[in-house]
Amino acid sequence: MGVVCVYTGNGKGKTSAAFGMALRFLGHGKRVVVIQFLKGTKTGEFMLKKNLPGLDIVQFGTENFVDLKNPSKEDKQRAIEALMYAKKIMTGAYRPDLLILDEANVAASAGMIDDTDLLDLISELPEEMNLVITGRGAGEKLLERADLVTEMKDVKHPFSKGRKAEEGLEY
Amino acid sequence: MGVVCVYTGNGKGKTSAAFGMALRFLGHGKRVVVIQFLKGTKTGEFMLKKNLPGLDIVQFGTENFVDLKNPSKEDKQRAIEALMYAKKIMTGAYRPDLLILDEANVAASAGMIDDTDLLDLISELPEEMNLVITGRGAGEKLLERADLVTEMKDVKHPFSKGRKAEEGLEY
Repeated sequence: MGVVCVYTGNGKGKTSAAFGMALRFLGHGKRVVVIQFLKGTKTGEFMLKKNLPGLDIVQFGTENFVDLKNPSKEDKQRAIEALMYAKKIMTGAYRPDLLILDEANVAASAGMIDDTDLLDLISELPEEMNLVITGRGAGEKLLERADLVTEMKDVKHPFSKGRKAEEGLEY
Repeated sequence: MGVVCVYTGNGKGKTSAAFGMALRFLGHGKRVVVIQFLKGTKTGEFMLKKNLPGLDIVQFGTENFVDLKNPSKEDKQRAIEALMYAKKIMTGAYRPDLLILDEANVAASAGMIDDTDLLDLISELPEEMNLVITGRGAGEKLLERADLVTEMKDVKHPFSKGRKAEEGLEY
């Protein structure tokens, strides 16, 4: 059975840790699919896809920020599509060794998808596939089900002190 | 001034987060040098170097585990060499945009290098270079000096329950 790994908490490094794990899998000749909820900007990791043949990144967000307190109908639709795509990847012919659902916790905690949707998805995780779910606010039931949970705790963060987000460091 | 970022704590994801950040920098066309204290095994990320021209990984450990309670003279020498190499990178002609000192906190807390060595090194950090230091047990003075600190907190870990480390997931 594949491992279900959750990176949550309010600290920096959740998506980075997922991509770092992706790099490991790729280095061992394995395949990785990253499904990005909420995100649609061409980040550094997105632009590097071309160098990494075993890596696929599919974005279901737009360039605009989602209002998490009041997500639009379209935003919700995009999150549901991301979920459906994840299911397709799990049951399809091209099965990666690692599937990353980036920011899925945020989509769930904002009510864009249901917590139970993520658990249903996990129940269908193929034997040989590993799953990483990132984002702050991971649900209790997901934490219970997960094999591995790391909380990224924000001890000190310059950007919360008004420093501007920078290329490479933040995106 | 470059940002000094520390990933510490007993949870999984510290080195991965550093490599994920490296991926971001590389995607933006920037250059990254990773200096690995204590590590000498050909991990997934190490094997991927050839795909990522802007990335250089230099290992100062051996394939063997270092006894952190009683590091050998040779192990200490290797850690000091890693530190000297870091200084060379900081002051040399080829200056990366991101320098990662992987597991340097562990080397410091095991007494293989001094806490003050890391602080001295930071005091020479060039204007345009960012620094990431990983490893559990980051020293108090380093935490004070750092701009960004994330503590990876181990909430749940299957490998601590006797599961064997696996390719991609752990190395």
